[in-house]
Amino acid sequence: MEYLDKNATTSSLESIVDDFWVLNATYLVFYMQAGFCLLEAGVVRAKNAKSIIIKSIIDTAIGSLIYWAIGFAFAFGYSSKVGNSFIGTSYFFLINYKNLSFFTFQWSFCVISCKIVSGSLAERVHINSCLIYTCVMSSIIHPIVSHWVWAEYGWLRNIGENGIIDFSGGIVVHVVGGSVGLVGAYLVGPRIGRFDADSGKPRPLPGHSITLYTLGAFIIWYGFYGFNTGSTLGLTGGRVLIAAKSSVTMTITATSSCATTLLAIKIKSGKYDVSKSVNGLLGGLVASAAVCAVIEPWAAFVIGCINAFVYLGGSNLLLKLRIDDPLDSSAIHFGCGIWGTLAVGFFSTKNDISVILRRETVTVYGLLNGGGFQQLGIQILGIVVVSIWCLFMATVLFTIMKRFNMLRIDPTRELMGIDMNQHGGPAYPNFQNV
Amino acid sequence: MEYLDKNATTSSLESIVDDFWVLNATYLVFYMQAGFCLLEAGVVRAKNAKSIIIKSIIDTAIGSLIYWAIGFAFAFGYSSKVGNSFIGTSYFFLINYKNLSFFTFQWSFCVISCKIVSGSLAERVHINSCLIYTCVMSSIIHPIVSHWVWAEYGWLRNIGENGIIDFSGGIVVHVVGGSVGLVGAYLVGPRIGRFDADSGKPRPLPGHSITLYTLGAFIIWYGFYGFNTGSTLGLTGGRVLIAAKSSVTMTITATSSCATTLLAIKIKSGKYDVSKSVNGLLGGLVASAAVCAVIEPWAAFVIGCINAFVYLGGSNLLLKLRIDDPLDSSAIHFGCGIWGTLAVGFFSTKNDISVILRRETVTVYGLLNGGGFQQLGIQILGIVVVSIWCLFMATVLFTIMKRFNMLRIDPTRELMGIDMNQHGGPAYPNFQNV
Amino acid sequence: MEYLDKNATTSSLESIVDDFWVLNATYLVFYMQAGFCLLEAGVVRAKNAKSIIIKSIIDTAIGSLIYWAIGFAFAFGYSSKVGNSFIGTSYFFLINYKNLSFFTFQWSFCVISCKIVSGSLAERVHINSCLIYTCVMSSIIHPIVSHWVWAEYGWLRNIGENGIIDFSGGIVVHVVGGSVGLVGAYLVGPRIGRFDADSGKPRPLPGHSITLYTLGAFIIWYGFYGFNTGSTLGLTGGRVLIAAKSSVTMTITATSSCATTLLAIKIKSGKYDVSKSVNGLLGGLVASAAVCAVIEPWAAFVIGCINAFVYLGGSNLLLKLRIDDPLDSSAIHFGCGIWGTLAVGFFSTKNDISVILRRETVTVYGLLNGGGFQQLGIQILGIVVVSIWCLFMATVLFTIMKRFNMLRIDPTRELMGIDMNQHGGPAYPNFQNV
Repeated sequence: MEYLDKNATTSSLESIVDDFWVLNATYLVFYMQAGFCLLEAGVVRAKNAKSIIIKSIIDTAIGSLIYWAIGFAFAFGYSSKVGNSFIGTSYFFLINYKNLSFFTFQWSFCVISCKIVSGSLAERVHINSCLIYTCVMSSIIHPIVSHWVWAEYGWLRNIGENGIIDFSGGIVVHVVGGSVGLVGAYLVGPRIGRFDADSGKPRPLPGHSITLYTLGAFIIWYGFYGFNTGSTLGLTGGRVLIAAKSSVTMTITATSSCATTLLAIKIKSGKYDVSKSVNGLLGGLVASAAVCAVIEPWAAFVIGCINAFVYLGGSNLLLKLRIDDPLDSSAIHFGCGIWGTLAVGFFSTKNDISVILRRETVTVYGLLNGGGFQQLGIQILGIVVVSIWCLFMATVLFTIMKRFNMLRIDPTRELMGIDMNQHGGPAYPNFQNV
Repeated sequence: MEYLDKNATTSSLESIVDDFWVLNATYLVFYMQAGFCLLEAGVVRAKNAKSIIIKSIIDTAIGSLIYWAIGFAFAFGYSSKVGNSFIGTSYFFLINYKNLSFFTFQWSFCVISCKIVSGSLAERVHINSCLIYTCVMSSIIHPIVSHWVWAEYGWLRNIGENGIIDFSGGIVVHVVGGSVGLVGAYLVGPRIGRFDADSGKPRPLPGHSITLYTLGAFIIWYGFYGFNTGSTLGLTGGRVLIAAKSSVTMTITATSSCATTLLAIKIKSGKYDVSKSVNGLLGGLVASAAVCAVIEPWAAFVIGCINAFVYLGGSNLLLKLRIDDPLDSSAIHFGCGIWGTLAVGFFSTKNDISVILRRETVTVYGLLNGGGFQQLGIQILGIVVVSIWCLFMATVLFTIMKRFNMLRIDPTRELMGIDMNQHGGPAYPNFQNV
Repeated sequence: MEYLDKNATTSSLESIVDDFWVLNATYLVFYMQAGFCLLEAGVVRAKNAKSIIIKSIIDTAIGSLIYWAIGFAFAFGYSSKVGNSFIGTSYFFLINYKNLSFFTFQWSFCVISCKIVSGSLAERVHINSCLIYTCVMSSIIHPIVSHWVWAEYGWLRNIGENGIIDFSGGIVVHVVGGSVGLVGAYLVGPRIGRFDADSGKPRPLPGHSITLYTLGAFIIWYGFYGFNTGSTLGLTGGRVLIAAKSSVTMTITATSSCATTLLAIKIKSGKYDVSKSVNGLLGGLVASAAVCAVIEPWAAFVIGCINAFVYLGGSNLLLKLRIDDPLDSSAIHFGCGIWGTLAVGFFSTKNDISVILRRETVTVYGLLNGGGFQQLGIQILGIVVVSIWCLFMATVLFTIMKRFNMLRIDPTRELMGIDMNQHGGPAYPNFQNV
């Protein structure tokens, strides 16, 4: 197991620049961990701040180790064109694996997908349950989808003319994380007081720091430039143009989604709502993940404007179903992740797809550009299959935990706040709480 | 409109590395949005935290979209050597424009210049006014200066032997943002209680979080490495040396300005003042913008030491004029931006200017290095003309808004805090406010 | 003194990419300043927040200027193979020095080592003392160790077959900063109330913001990717593989150290402890500094697991000795820094060492891989000598300051909080303190 091959000192400058790009993107994506941690911390009440932080640390630390040991092997280990196109079977503990830039980039994706789940479960779950679902997410749920969509012989990658197109994790990260979180939020039940006992109407449980929440969102936005442009896996061979273009389209989708959300709420309620606007922004970033590399700027704008309503619709639907998702994680990641993946079927251009697939030409591309229904069909198939996989796995996982009473803390502790009885005291001991 | 040209796959590795540098710098500059957001949030009182955050989101989101649609076209669209050297006339919505790395780098500058304005207006303006000035800033005020100074046929770029030298936005970003903010702060009037009703003496209205303020400043410092070194627009052709040198001179200017501010206040008042020291640091970063690439380290040190007094003088002048600029934005960006731009006329070296202009040699350079008065004269001309343009435009803009009563919120709301009545509740609902 | 050599425009693309890598890493390392600032701010009580922030600004600003003027010359100025292999003697103020990417990378290391000290001294020292020790650290203590270990003719670098191996500052940054802080914490004495006056038992003095503390740690983690991979000083010649590998091993060491700390405390006390877990993470990052480039992933995991107990043992030892180190800085940086440096002697592989030293082969490497005792012996020698140097210098320095009553503030001020009487008011004037 020698990762450093002395003969590799002759590796071409092209490949060095490509690896540089991937490593740099990895660090940016990693930094999103800080962003998600703040986002989640900001949205909980002060009495649960330590509790959400420790979960954030657990999913990063444990998730990383599990992915190194098992997850990556399932995601990118050996499989075959015929026979097994469902799961990788080599490279456990990175044994015999040499492309460590690629590994580390994929690792950064996996820990993001774990982190998305914890937002949906904030303020009411046992920490032990976080340990368990992180292990399952990073070893099985995420890696297997990763294999289907991105591994050389993954079945979704090889279906139809182009295979499914998920440029940087619209399905693999966001649909996966968002759908698992949705099941968790449903099965664990709403926080005490979130819905009025009589009328069932939602009551606001505002988070303790909108400043940290917003900072978290800006950090995530920053990290998304690594997320969405690092997925070129290099800059040579015309890929620098894809990276530049993805930066632009992602910015346009995110800002148009944010602006539309802001204005829609202002028109409806007369108020500018900070957290919804931030969520509209995050939703726009999520929507751009699958699609940013294969569209024109005008399409990025249209996708972003529509996305605001996807997010707002999803958020309202959660409330109607009395599902309490404190960060609107499932609306943002599951909802907007689906929309971005679908948008490939509508807006992708012939030229863009042929460039990212490195083909002379393609005959299948976005419906609205005259590329027919096939790509849209494949995108829908991918969304359906991946959703079923995740919803099923999550249902099994959380149901078992619920059965063994490992999922939800008892009501007394929930009301008192998790920090006092589980983490040795309040997060902000110098300030007077109300 | 095809940004991805398949034939471009043969683009040289040199140009790939250059674009990589620019994209990476862009992400760093973008991240300054988070820094400015925290800086502004930290300096307002807790009752207005949401209000300043929503402005921060609006100027980023709306400013980005307007710059994509209109601003970039005015800044870098087609103009001509004779006739129109004042405004670009093509590339609206990026139509027919291919160099997306350059666009995205310029975009990151534009949204910074918008953001500078909001600091001067904190805690007392209508949010709608923020929407309006962001549109005007990002479509007209900033792009047109950008054209004059940086576009191929911009008139300030082509005046005299070297044209105006503004390496990375001393004029284009900081003088523009700072001067517009100054006019805004003057026309909107001071916050209630900022100046004693009888004596007219300033009274402190300390911000709610010096920690977030400082974090914001560190993030801005970090982002400035992208700002000041990305302006090489690449690393090949000797530009890597300019980038390395700019990193060093910028660090020296910033730290010497910070240390001088810190010690000057300690000597005068006996206290170490956190926020003034941080502002001295930020002022040093601003001063380095125009000049960092064309000076020696010793000059960077001298410029920084002097800059402390430029900042402190500007800050005192604001108070004497009873202009309430909560972040000292106009002292920092307008004042230190002018000083840095002037410093080019004094300290720039023959060799440095010839390298950044890619000429065999130049005969005009810094006065103190024996390069005569021409460069200094051009720098002064640039400062005067750009200031007049910005002050005039801002006066028209804010006067109209004032006339239509769209500028300032009513005193009851101001006293109660903007968050309670405009944003649905306080930013920190779990803490007891005083 | 011309840093920009026009003839250098023919510099090879290889060297451009290498410098790009170093500059980018420098910015990441610089950003750790923000991380340490938050870490320290989060751990102090609200009444001392401004005080710790101003120290953070002082050590960055003053330390940078001193390193430019003097420190770098001592660290990397001219010395000789025979005769003086102890201290550099040229390049003061960067005169005649051209490799500014290298300078700026080293600068970023120096200011980190200064910053580590201030954590140990929080909440009870005069700010003037911070000014003084920053000057001594950045001019003498750190640069001389830097010379011994990293300069071409440094004596520790040239001892035995391979010289000491400290890939990215396990000794030069962490042992130096941690040991100086340890002496400071011992000589300044514990904070009032930290140890029970009767029983001598430690009493918790919890910090005012665990959120900022955690954010600081995530930022440091992010910056460590620059720290540990930038130390390749480039990517060509096979170094991209070292960079990728170091990213992976560092992640594994950090996360395994964090997870082990978390679980060890959970098993012992039944609680999940946020700040200890975060410290375990930071300790893992520190441990990886010296060793990350020369080990396999499995060794990184073992090193991390053991490291948790190194940290916890160090932390407990501090309490037994009644040394009050508010951030556990000396346990983290001195303790884990030593362990990481030792680990090179145990776990380094033949192949890895030959690659990083650019030799055909080596006969001396890690004991557990069959490379004999020599490397381990050299690592121990380095640790002992550097520790003696730092502990001695720090003892002299802090004893003098103590003698002249410049070290500790008086008890009344300490109890009241430093911010009220030294910095013009509280850090959080809008919140009710308890």
